[in-house]
Amino acid sequence: MTTTTGQRAPIPRLNQDYTRGAGARRLEFLGDATGTRPAHIGRYSIDPAAVVGNVENFIGVAQVPVGIAGPLLVNGEHARGEFYVPLATTEGTLVASYNRGMKLLHHAGGVTTTVMDDRMQRAPAFGFDSAREARAFGQWVTASFDAIKREADATTHTGRLHDIEQFSASRFIFLRFNYTTGDAAGQNMTGKATSRACDWIRDRYPGVRQFCLESNLATDKKNSQINILATRGKRVTAEATIRAGLIREILHTTPEEMFCARQMSNLGGLLSGVNSNGNHSANGIAALFVATGQDIANVAESSAALVHSELLDDGSYYYSITIPALIVATYGGGTGLPTQRECLELLGCYGTGKVLKFAEIVTATVLCGELSLGSAVVAGEWVDAHERLGRNRP
Amino acid sequence: MTTTTGQRAPIPRLNQDYTRGAGARRLEFLGDATGTRPAHIGRYSIDPAAVVGNVENFIGVAQVPVGIAGPLLVNGEHARGEFYVPLATTEGTLVASYNRGMKLLHHAGGVTTTVMDDRMQRAPAFGFDSAREARAFGQWVTASFDAIKREADATTHTGRLHDIEQFSASRFIFLRFNYTTGDAAGQNMTGKATSRACDWIRDRYPGVRQFCLESNLATDKKNSQINILATRGKRVTAEATIRAGLIREILHTTPEEMFCARQMSNLGGLLSGVNSNGNHSANGIAALFVATGQDIANVAESSAALVHSELLDDGSYYYSITIPALIVATYGGGTGLPTQRECLELLGCYGTGKVLKFAEIVTATVLCGELSLGSAVVAGEWVDAHERLGRNRP
Amino acid sequence: MTTTTGQRAPIPRLNQDYTRGAGARRLEFLGDATGTRPAHIGRYSIDPAAVVGNVENFIGVAQVPVGIAGPLLVNGEHARGEFYVPLATTEGTLVASYNRGMKLLHHAGGVTTTVMDDRMQRAPAFGFDSAREARAFGQWVTASFDAIKREADATTHTGRLHDIEQFSASRFIFLRFNYTTGDAAGQNMTGKATSRACDWIRDRYPGVRQFCLESNLATDKKNSQINILATRGKRVTAEATIRAGLIREILHTTPEEMFCARQMSNLGGLLSGVNSNGNHSANGIAALFVATGQDIANVAESSAALVHSELLDDGSYYYSITIPALIVATYGGGTGLPTQRECLELLGCYGTGKVLKFAEIVTATVLCGELSLGSAVVAGEWVDAHERLGRNRP
Amino acid sequence: MTTTTGQRAPIPRLNQDYTRGAGARRLEFLGDATGTRPAHIGRYSIDPAAVVGNVENFIGVAQVPVGIAGPLLVNGEHARGEFYVPLATTEGTLVASYNRGMKLLHHAGGVTTTVMDDRMQRAPAFGFDSAREARAFGQWVTASFDAIKREADATTHTGRLHDIEQFSASRFIFLRFNYTTGDAAGQNMTGKATSRACDWIRDRYPGVRQFCLESNLATDKKNSQINILATRGKRVTAEATIRAGLIREILHTTPEEMFCARQMSNLGGLLSGVNSNGNHSANGIAALFVATGQDIANVAESSAALVHSELLDDGSYYYSITIPALIVATYGGGTGLPTQRECLELLGCYGTGKVLKFAEIVTATVLCGELSLGSAVVAGEWVDAHERLGRNRP
Repeated sequence: MTTTTGQRAPIPRLNQDYTRGAGARRLEFLGDATGTRPAHIGRYSIDPAAVVGNVENFIGVAQVPVGIAGPLLVNGEHARGEFYVPLATTEGTLVASYNRGMKLLHHAGGVTTTVMDDRMQRAPAFGFDSAREARAFGQWVTASFDAIKREADATTHTGRLHDIEQFSASRFIFLRFNYTTGDAAGQNMTGKATSRACDWIRDRYPGVRQFCLESNLATDKKNSQINILATRGKRVTAEATIRAGLIREILHTTPEEMFCARQMSNLGGLLSGVNSNGNHSANGIAALFVATGQDIANVAESSAALVHSELLDDGSYYYSITIPALIVATYGGGTGLPTQRECLELLGCYGTGKVLKFAEIVTATVLCGELSLGSAVVAGEWVDAHERLGRNRP
Repeated sequence: MTTTTGQRAPIPRLNQDYTRGAGARRLEFLGDATGTRPAHIGRYSIDPAAVVGNVENFIGVAQVPVGIAGPLLVNGEHARGEFYVPLATTEGTLVASYNRGMKLLHHAGGVTTTVMDDRMQRAPAFGFDSAREARAFGQWVTASFDAIKREADATTHTGRLHDIEQFSASRFIFLRFNYTTGDAAGQNMTGKATSRACDWIRDRYPGVRQFCLESNLATDKKNSQINILATRGKRVTAEATIRAGLIREILHTTPEEMFCARQMSNLGGLLSGVNSNGNHSANGIAALFVATGQDIANVAESSAALVHSELLDDGSYYYSITIPALIVATYGGGTGLPTQRECLELLGCYGTGKVLKFAEIVTATVLCGELSLGSAVVAGEWVDAHERLGRNRP
Repeated sequence: MTTTTGQRAPIPRLNQDYTRGAGARRLEFLGDATGTRPAHIGRYSIDPAAVVGNVENFIGVAQVPVGIAGPLLVNGEHARGEFYVPLATTEGTLVASYNRGMKLLHHAGGVTTTVMDDRMQRAPAFGFDSAREARAFGQWVTASFDAIKREADATTHTGRLHDIEQFSASRFIFLRFNYTTGDAAGQNMTGKATSRACDWIRDRYPGVRQFCLESNLATDKKNSQINILATRGKRVTAEATIRAGLIREILHTTPEEMFCARQMSNLGGLLSGVNSNGNHSANGIAALFVATGQDIANVAESSAALVHSELLDDGSYYYSITIPALIVATYGGGTGLPTQRECLELLGCYGTGKVLKFAEIVTATVLCGELSLGSAVVAGEWVDAHERLGRNRP
Repeated sequence: MTTTTGQRAPIPRLNQDYTRGAGARRLEFLGDATGTRPAHIGRYSIDPAAVVGNVENFIGVAQVPVGIAGPLLVNGEHARGEFYVPLATTEGTLVASYNRGMKLLHHAGGVTTTVMDDRMQRAPAFGFDSAREARAFGQWVTASFDAIKREADATTHTGRLHDIEQFSASRFIFLRFNYTTGDAAGQNMTGKATSRACDWIRDRYPGVRQFCLESNLATDKKNSQINILATRGKRVTAEATIRAGLIREILHTTPEEMFCARQMSNLGGLLSGVNSNGNHSANGIAALFVATGQDIANVAESSAALVHSELLDDGSYYYSITIPALIVATYGGGTGLPTQRECLELLGCYGTGKVLKFAEIVTATVLCGELSLGSAVVAGEWVDAHERLGRNRP
């Protein structure tokens, strides 16, 4: 669309109108403006009123294909048993590859999952006339924690301020507010709570020269070392031990070859400065996020991963992956939209009290994909699989 | 779903059956297995045959709400004029926020975009008996480049091997094959080409002790310093200069306050080790990726960003963002699916010869979102906006 | 020395002999073995008995030239007034450059210094059969802190365990023991205390499958994000505000030009993944470390730095540097050796109760060097200065 | 020294006076100013005229104890045979530990060393009105390489411009000039050559809006990912294979235990964001640098290291370390000072044509220290050794 600047009428201002007709009118306007005739975007089964709070200027839906992998066998504390995992993707081979990993680990007795930590952050910065005044402020915050927590917690029924970490540079103090947020991902909840707490602080503490509610120390929707180290969202580990025979039979390689490739990946990662020494956790995470109404932008930090594997004395292969910043919800955000809710329900994960179960399933899924892709590369089957199942056009 | 292990029948093996009936049978099986009745996943307007090559075990679609922002005014080399940008998201406020940024920059004369670089990688590793032999291999590769290129290029019509970078550690040489890939994102294309080239190499060069087609030096779907530094996919810069009056009027703050907050973000980012000193590029990228059939997992590396801003002498504000690893396609993958293709068509970006135009639009969109969110935080309007438009449940 | 393998006699085993004669005999042996006649290494004024505990197989000394810069005017909490700073270096221009910065900041009213934090670490890792057992262990450690602290503190008069941070990955828990260590740098002290504490833990807690007293989470003598973020040794900020006139007169540039160059450095650093957005803090640190008997290898982590500067409304320039992992001592290690002690005494910093004063002087010195080099680059005087004062041989 | 500001006379201006008397007068002044009586700093055997070009305001020397370790058996390309390595340190245990490692690897047949790469950088930044103009400039630089090289090379007899890498962000192009620099470390040489080349560029290319000769993309004396990835100075790998029996006998542990600890270190390093997955390369490097007149501040980047080890089928242990940014010289700088030159001569490394030999010896030494410390931690002997040989005061 290469129109002349300023000729077009602006998009009809129907932001508060979430009827099917309003969407259709916007689409029509777009069709006119761009000379196209979208035939599918406006065709959806969901009630457009359902998307209030999820999108503005609604015109319809993206129909993203969903495939199913499984059964995934999980030995978690919250997820126990077999699950069929809906994956929304447009990348051929992805579902098949995860499915293969699930088959392997089902034979191996399942994936053991553990939620190691759970916290959501907002991190305001406070600037002062000097570092010394910044340090004094930090001490005052420590002493005032109970009152600050009272303010923050008053804004929410489910969020709870757990602690405030402090970091300093120049004449600034960065406060990292750590919350538990129930079954919501919690970014908005913690934003509101921290904003209120900061209002209270600034009313009482004189001499704040600069203030910002967020200054890159919570790193929402960004990858960071602090989140790899100290957790954002859920920190979950998935583990499995696989007999050599299974690896030979299903993956067409050996534990030794996989371990050797793993060491090369570790070395390559040290050179490249990568945020994961694993293979492709982002694939499974993104596909589950789209299917279940998670905030897709959180793939940015959720894709960080720490892989550790061991060749055991009996010849079997221990493999684990830790996702240090998995941002998930089973309530709020996009989780209640029709297809998204149905996908969560397929996993028995919709609504309150389910977020840790869901976090375990995501991480177990990721582990299956790690082993499947990792072995395909080692066994020389990776390219062939994509040739067979994907859209490789030369 | 907490069934006893092993009781369930496996999912019906209908991988090659892409009929509507096959999807329905799988859904029915899942409903039985999980005791749920998905009513929406199986309702879609698209022809299921269209998803061959995009997904396996197809059961239906995720319906992701699409809103429209714009007009976005772009002064690119490939994208010129006004665009209405479809954003698929479930995060309330997102479309409204990007829309506000687009309004601002329309008034400011538009967003200038430049594609600075374009390359796609695959990075195999070769291990030897010693570092010295690894070094000799590296020299041989340099001398053999023409022949290697012949092998690689023979596998593809559109991909072209541009150069091979070499990196070493221990007794390994990591070869980073840099390709141009036309309008496809190119991960599969470069995988196949590099695989063929490596077959050729291993046939000719004796003494390769270990080999892996990928070892964390291309870092597909992962964030890495090498990709921030040396580009993966498209490297695009978007820039704008905004008069102080506009910032006051539309963003309710001043260039000085925004610049000050920017410096705090830079400092916070040095502490946290973040992959972007910007605000939330992942939001716009993810929403555009879902809408237009990009590989969503690439949000992992595409969300890296480099922001630079300046207070100009005349009081206006220069703001730029560089996305160093933007992975996009206008052909292949999910771009041809019905709603995805329509969204690309709304932007005049479907098909061959359009990928740089699309890359410019994505980056221009991101710039609008940076300014809008950044200013909302500074002006204290961020939390309020989410309260008003989002699904904040206390 | 290209002798045939195995022909040489081993070096005389005189490890416990710290007499001048023993050193001479070793030197004589080396002279014979290598066909050289070292004339200076064996000439030193110090009593060789003084180096017991500092070196083994003593043969003499390296004579490293010391120059003096100053007066440095410090407005610290522990360092107050003027100081003449001894810098041991072989890099021409270094002393002159720091001296110029000291002159500038003396005119500007001095350098304000603040010790923001103080802690020294040892970080053992504990492995278990599964992540779940690792998590249980972490909870037990939290509950057992008082007893663990008792064990650790019992090994030292001056060290005190402050807290234990926990980090997890796979089936491992990494415990980062944070101590205060008085006027010693404290690496050995914390090693011993943590070792004892871990013995106690392993006696009581069953199921520890793997154990290592250190596993890259204290990162002694290495640069790491955790130490930049969370402090190792002393975290010190030095600040100054300089009038534009002074910058013009002494540095031959302007605050605006320096600020502009600073922004370019920030951007370059984001690309390169550098551990300091400053200029060359390692120069001043290394020169002071050699002169005063610090552990030189700690230059590795002490050279990390966070610079923040601002153009103020009145045209003057605010500049600050934070050293987040400054490892210094005024007692123990090499601080008591004759020339080293004398250099500390020149600063009024030898012995107990002086380490924070010394940390402030180091950081103030670094700030002077930042401004001097930074401005020389901007003013185009950098290369010329090295031509004039250094050993530039074409 | 807590005098009142401004009362002291400045240090006598004797910068160009390098006589023993001038040093004595400065020391006397300092003694008066600080109320101390330095007795050793002013006692040195070297001719003070020798330090012209190495230091300003010379007052004497730091006497740093030197111990000797060896014989180190090196199977390099440049270093071949046995070497006795002088280590200047004040850290007890260090020489003994490196010596133990040298003994081990002598029994194991020596250390194989390979120089993988060699380059020194200066990285100026050029800013323009827009990214598009920056890109055009980059293309012009590529086209003008021969002429730029002519300018750069004209400033030096030994330095040669090899290539110019380009990186972009916002409206800036960062040019990384890669040189070979003979036996000098080359920072000054490359500074001068690049400065001249940039003068030439700026004379010819209009529209350069901002310029800086260095902007954090060469990262001299700082750690960075770019230097780990792409080499600064020498990139050297040292390797050895050690039989299990030797490890048991000399190190009191097993290859399996060492390998297991190595994996834990790798995992810890992923969490902490460390610049080395090794143990303590900075120790050996710093001790050799002080002894041989290297620029000590370069410990900052030279301490980065990449370790890779393997358990071999025959039960022996392969261990390698790669130092990607080793900055060394055997000519120029401090290498010609008396004790420093003697230490180089002990290694047969003084003067032209020796720098690669020296680089190999440094890296071989580092490898010995890695194995010795690594095994001491595993065998539980680390703390005891420091108790026995160091200055551990409780």
